Amino acid sequence: MKTVKPTLPAGVRDYLPAEMIFRDKVLAKIRAMYEVFGFSPIETPAIEREEVLTGGKPLDMIIWRTSTSKVYEGDDRLALHYDLTVPLARVVAANNDLPRPFRRYQCQKVWRGEKPQAGRYREFMQFDADIVGTASLLADTEIVWLMVSAMSALGFTRFMVRFSTRKVLNALAGMLDLEQGSDRARDLFRILDKQDKIGRDGVAALLGKAFVDHADRDPNDPEATESGLGFSEDQITIARSFLDIGGDTDQVLASLSAFFKGRSALGEEAVKDLETMSKGLVNLGVPKENWTVDITVARGLAYYTGPVFETTLLDLPEIGSVMSGGRYDDLVTRFTGESLPATGASIGVDRLFAAMEKLGMVKGCKTATRVLVTIMDPKLTDRCLDVLQRLRNAQIPAEIYMGPDMAIKAQLAYALNQNIPFVIFLGQSEVEKGTIQIKDTFNREQLEVPMADLVEKIEERRRLHILQRKDA
Amino acid sequence: MKTVKPTLPAGVRDYLPAEMIFRDKVLAKIRAMYEVFGFSPIETPAIEREEVLTGGKPLDMIIWRTSTSKVYEGDDRLALHYDLTVPLARVVAANNDLPRPFRRYQCQKVWRGEKPQAGRYREFMQFDADIVGTASLLADTEIVWLMVSAMSALGFTRFMVRFSTRKVLNALAGMLDLEQGSDRARDLFRILDKQDKIGRDGVAALLGKAFVDHADRDPNDPEATESGLGFSEDQITIARSFLDIGGDTDQVLASLSAFFKGRSALGEEAVKDLETMSKGLVNLGVPKENWTVDITVARGLAYYTGPVFETTLLDLPEIGSVMSGGRYDDLVTRFTGESLPATGASIGVDRLFAAMEKLGMVKGCKTATRVLVTIMDPKLTDRCLDVLQRLRNAQIPAEIYMGPDMAIKAQLAYALNQNIPFVIFLGQSEVEKGTIQIKDTFNREQLEVPMADLVEKIEERRRLHILQRKDA
Repeated sequence: MKTVKPTLPAGVRDYLPAEMIFRDKVLAKIRAMYEVFGFSPIETPAIEREEVLTGGKPLDMIIWRTSTSKVYEGDDRLALHYDLTVPLARVVAANNDLPRPFRRYQCQKVWRGEKPQAGRYREFMQFDADIVGTASLLADTEIVWLMVSAMSALGFTRFMVRFSTRKVLNALAGMLDLEQGSDRARDLFRILDKQDKIGRDGVAALLGKAFVDHADRDPNDPEATESGLGFSEDQITIARSFLDIGGDTDQVLASLSAFFKGRSALGEEAVKDLETMSKGLVNLGVPKENWTVDITVARGLAYYTGPVFETTLLDLPEIGSVMSGGRYDDLVTRFTGESLPATGASIGVDRLFAAMEKLGMVKGCKTATRVLVTIMDPKLTDRCLDVLQRLRNAQIPAEIYMGPDMAIKAQLAYALNQNIPFVIFLGQSEVEKGTIQIKDTFNREQLEVPMADLVEKIEERRRLHILQRKDA
Repeated sequence: MKTVKPTLPAGVRDYLPAEMIFRDKVLAKIRAMYEVFGFSPIETPAIEREEVLTGGKPLDMIIWRTSTSKVYEGDDRLALHYDLTVPLARVVAANNDLPRPFRRYQCQKVWRGEKPQAGRYREFMQFDADIVGTASLLADTEIVWLMVSAMSALGFTRFMVRFSTRKVLNALAGMLDLEQGSDRARDLFRILDKQDKIGRDGVAALLGKAFVDHADRDPNDPEATESGLGFSEDQITIARSFLDIGGDTDQVLASLSAFFKGRSALGEEAVKDLETMSKGLVNLGVPKENWTVDITVARGLAYYTGPVFETTLLDLPEIGSVMSGGRYDDLVTRFTGESLPATGASIGVDRLFAAMEKLGMVKGCKTATRVLVTIMDPKLTDRCLDVLQRLRNAQIPAEIYMGPDMAIKAQLAYALNQNIPFVIFLGQSEVEKGTIQIKDTFNREQLEVPMADLVEKIEERRRLHILQRKDA
């Protein structure tokens, strides 16, 4: 018989119980925090019209197209969403009865058609929170507050939410005579964003290199062509003095203010915005060690128009930002022709988990089951089922052994391999005495208790396990 | 400017907050019940290799293919999963270290490329629970117990879990001289399954109609050709006497036993299996009004091999089964060449919600927010933010008003439109007195309380709302 290999395509993955139980706990914590901040959940379909996703323009991203063997009316050009922000914009454009501002969170998978490579997924989960319909900087301030709160709720302490505003880079582009929104301006941001990887000198060198027209680049991989911007010495000097701005929030704001003063009205506005947000965060008592103004934050995506946010793990800076976002005031425009102010942040869930794993923060159970009821004597199966029923009625996750190998050793091994905390034994002598044997596998103890005390005893031991930090 | 229509493809849908908040609650209840039964969560990617999904054979279902503009190695022939059972089989085949039996639950979207039509989704959510690696009827009995428990936990009372075993139909097919697993045998099951729609006479007539070879049917829609089976009068008589079997569990078992006795060893085995399960359910005290043996349960999918389950809502029989499943012992065979016994059930979440809506069981909040902090005086914004912070620190979902229209009327309307239970007002006079105004919008009352009592007062009122059944 010809068999099929049980393999996955590149760039996608399974979550088996040990990881999944932990992931569900993490997602529940994020969800709870988002709700405390007054965000409500929505869900949108994975399949959208391609035009909705691209806005009818070429995209700096490879998307996954979907099709069936039979194409029904309205089915042509469908694709999987590559983020949750564009679908949100569609929802807002299509539903006039939604409140304004509309505060929504959304946790779903997204798909990107990138080249498969180690550590990069082509199907991954995002957890977004956005406020649509307000231009108030209070909203951006809240997003930073939310980011710090969510990271803290997950148990992170050594992390930094870094933020800037796109106005800073737009003002810089203006000072460098690059047209707003032009290919060259976008390339500038992309090159500045490389500072962490190639250093200031690397950035300066790249800025001086010749510019390659976007039309001459590989549309599937526009970054493969390492184009420069053909900057003059004067332009490079301006860029360098911009790159020299650094330090803590107060230092950055002072340097930035001096850099733009009298040279760029937009730049002065940028400084004011960042000052407003910083003051807000101080007033709210958001811990200063977890946020900072950092003008190297650029965010690749073209649609950001105002404040932009990133989150770095201080012990794992190399993995990049685990929670990012920004203000995007023009995303609904593709649908309505009008701009609608919006701001938000997104957690790259899979990257966050990879980080938690590396930091030793993952404490998973291998199974939901807390009690295994064994069958020592098949004649007593009904009695064992009665025990199972008592446990389940008390909402204690329990199962009865059903393996093919009925040897007690095999039954116990099944429990131990999965770290099931309790194993129940019931033999003829226990039935006669009206008792039951409870094995506490975490503490390697065995107790014989009256059948009537079963649930109470298990619950008492579960509390003990939590106190002992052996179970959560 | 040319705009894009913010529309969805046919057959997919959004979930906005009012529905989504309710849906999340329902899913959480199902999840909790599955865990109490000792099932652990897994998640598999949406994108699988097509060969994995089809087993390399033609499928009675149209699937969604996915592709990117650039095809990387190993990317050819990918598709979205159409159920969660085949991915489970792949996981089990690929992971030898999983426990046996492996009890897993899985809640994910699945995709089917059917023709778009009212009330039918092409992207929808399934919530599955399966036990893989045991042939024990105890496992099938447990699945029925689980189905009854899950439906009860969701608040359903008038429902019926109906079960049979495929052995019944296989035995009947044998008595009718149809080869096991043949196209004709599958057609027999499909035709018998129509009994609810076309009645016993309709089924008998169809059985007598000429048979159309499967090769001559539309591969995309094999049911479009209403083929019969070309049965003789004798065969139709046997089928009719089979269709006459009905009544409660005891009556069905008695009639079925008489029907098969001495005529089919497999049929006698089927009766024994159903008796074992029924006795198990009685012993476990699973309420008799919520389960019954019903041999009209056939389940369309070809892969079932043993007991099969369906759940009918007694007040909405027309919507079909909301939770179904069965035993499938050969699904892993396509990967390993060996059979592995498995059984489980799946909830069609979207159909279940449609039913709950029709039955008036949906009690949704429009927003997660429980308190809106208004801004009466922009100069007092920092004080309002302080109030917001106190509420959020106490884990009370709260937001501060950020709309463009700062009139108090607009701020109140924002809260009332979303049924936010509490609205906070803070003016200069309250600041001077050290108090705060709390409007209870559910009870149309306004209270002035000391600022220090804010959280306590809101929590007291929230408990009152729950007692009044005005909030959950």
